[in-house]
Amino acid sequence: VNEDAIVEAIRAVINEYRPRHPERPRIAGAVEGGDDAALWQPSRSHRSAISTDMLVEGVDFTRDLMSLEDAGWRAMAANLSDLAATGARPVLAVVALGLPQASSLEEVVEIYRGLAGCAARYKLAIVGGDLSRADAIALAITVVGEIRPSNVKTRAGGRPGDILAVTGALGAARAGLELARVSIPLEGLEEEALRAFRRPEARIAEGRFFAASRNVRAMMDLSDGLATDVRRLAGASGCGAELSNIPVARSASALSSVRKDDPQRFALCGGEDFELLVAIRPRAFPHLAARYKSHFGRELAPVGVLRAEKGLTWNGEPLELSGWDHFAR
Amino acid sequence: VNEDAIVEAIRAVINEYRPRHPERPRIAGAVEGGDDAALWQPSRSHRSAISTDMLVEGVDFTRDLMSLEDAGWRAMAANLSDLAATGARPVLAVVALGLPQASSLEEVVEIYRGLAGCAARYKLAIVGGDLSRADAIALAITVVGEIRPSNVKTRAGGRPGDILAVTGALGAARAGLELARVSIPLEGLEEEALRAFRRPEARIAEGRFFAASRNVRAMMDLSDGLATDVRRLAGASGCGAELSNIPVARSASALSSVRKDDPQRFALCGGEDFELLVAIRPRAFPHLAARYKSHFGRELAPVGVLRAEKGLTWNGEPLELSGWDHFAR
Repeated sequence: VNEDAIVEAIRAVINEYRPRHPERPRIAGAVEGGDDAALWQPSRSHRSAISTDMLVEGVDFTRDLMSLEDAGWRAMAANLSDLAATGARPVLAVVALGLPQASSLEEVVEIYRGLAGCAARYKLAIVGGDLSRADAIALAITVVGEIRPSNVKTRAGGRPGDILAVTGALGAARAGLELARVSIPLEGLEEEALRAFRRPEARIAEGRFFAASRNVRAMMDLSDGLATDVRRLAGASGCGAELSNIPVARSASALSSVRKDDPQRFALCGGEDFELLVAIRPRAFPHLAARYKSHFGRELAPVGVLRAEKGLTWNGEPLELSGWDHFAR
Repeated sequence: VNEDAIVEAIRAVINEYRPRHPERPRIAGAVEGGDDAALWQPSRSHRSAISTDMLVEGVDFTRDLMSLEDAGWRAMAANLSDLAATGARPVLAVVALGLPQASSLEEVVEIYRGLAGCAARYKLAIVGGDLSRADAIALAITVVGEIRPSNVKTRAGGRPGDILAVTGALGAARAGLELARVSIPLEGLEEEALRAFRRPEARIAEGRFFAASRNVRAMMDLSDGLATDVRRLAGASGCGAELSNIPVARSASALSSVRKDDPQRFALCGGEDFELLVAIRPRAFPHLAARYKSHFGRELAPVGVLRAEKGLTWNGEPLELSGWDHFAR
């Protein structure tokens, strides 16, 4: 049973039970996709965004690859990345924590140092939580953010001809995962890679920057790898896409070179970079990219174009690579 | 390590990392207590409330005692009960689901039938979620509700002299748990008990009714048993409490009688009734109780009084019973 089949079955049940006459139907529209943010309207002039994620020890993280503090940080950052993709500003988080019988207070404190450190980095408050016994550490985080109604971005707004761009070079988190497993010298780039894997950043400021622009038509965060996620954005927008030049993180490049892999292929498939993928009105791209660079000191890297014809290509060939499916492995 | 010690350690970490200059400090104040709802202010005239809970198979529910559909319903109802305690109207839920490798699509559908059935009962929408692999089924639900700022109730508003009252008779859920374990004939009351255990109601309408009254000074939901929860409400209000007459559910009464237990003691300690406990200005009690009865067709049962002197008594003796601590057993 793969993830898409499960999500499909869940959608069918939810639709079957959906209240026919909700008191006030003010859900502003759930963003497409199983694990993204949903939006609602607490008052006429406001939108709130909400996203939830669960991480389980032994599945989503293991202590031989990262500390519990790293696991807490990464869990929070991954969740905030879903908010970043809507353009929202994070406001608060709640945390449900499942703990094995043998857990010590020190372990709980370590997890919370990661959670609270990441929350402080993005100026949101952890306002509540729940504790339960569990066989392995399970960390379920829900984050809430706010956004002006006119600024909300989804995956679905892209149009043929839009330029696809990413907010940073890809592949470092995947390189970090592999370096955490087996130490490989990378000319001083080990730290960059391990940090990308263990302490990822959520592109909150970048998301808000794009949200404020009418020339950004679609946005999502890259959690499962560009090869998988571009399919989702293009699909939600009713388009196909051509990918060409993938920006590769220096550490990913160095690792690929050591292993004689294709660095672009590595960057295309490596997940959990948490960069944003945006579809931009083509005429507006140069100006927006210049503003992005002066704002953030990094390049907004064009990686391709949306097309009216369905299907994905990479350097002219059909794209058959894919990223991460939690249930396929 | 008990639950209170863990919650204390978590609070200390969160305070240490709390952003000193959050962009706009619009968290309206987290309600006291580890597993209750927190509030924030999406716009000047609105408050939102949020609550999260995690249930793990083998710990919080087992399939020999209830179906997966029951487990889904109960998880959602328990979470909604936390919103009911603030006086909020539920708007939406997000669900993070951890699934063992061997789970079938039918099992996922069964869980979601319970979740979505309960959500439909209270007219909220399930708007998003997440899937993860886990060793046992883990169900983390976050619910969001809305409430007028002037209506928000917490545990902390009670004053000496306030009447303590509960929205219904207690002990049925505990009786249901015991009947699910060992079948005992109860003169036709088995169904009432099993239903209270497997398909509890959240007192949403009752919470909103009390929220609209200025004479209700404190409110919470009874999830861990009145003996434990009254201590929390009284403590948060800076009071002690005298308990006297505890309303006992018919099935709890019948089970106590079969087992020669004290039915009031059984009702006092049995958890997960999800009734509301309210502290009411004494002069207003008769009128409010009459309105409650005409509205809901049930008695608002007075169970005691808040006192300036710290400490709890039951029928004049110190109250030494307590309910449920997830980490003590």
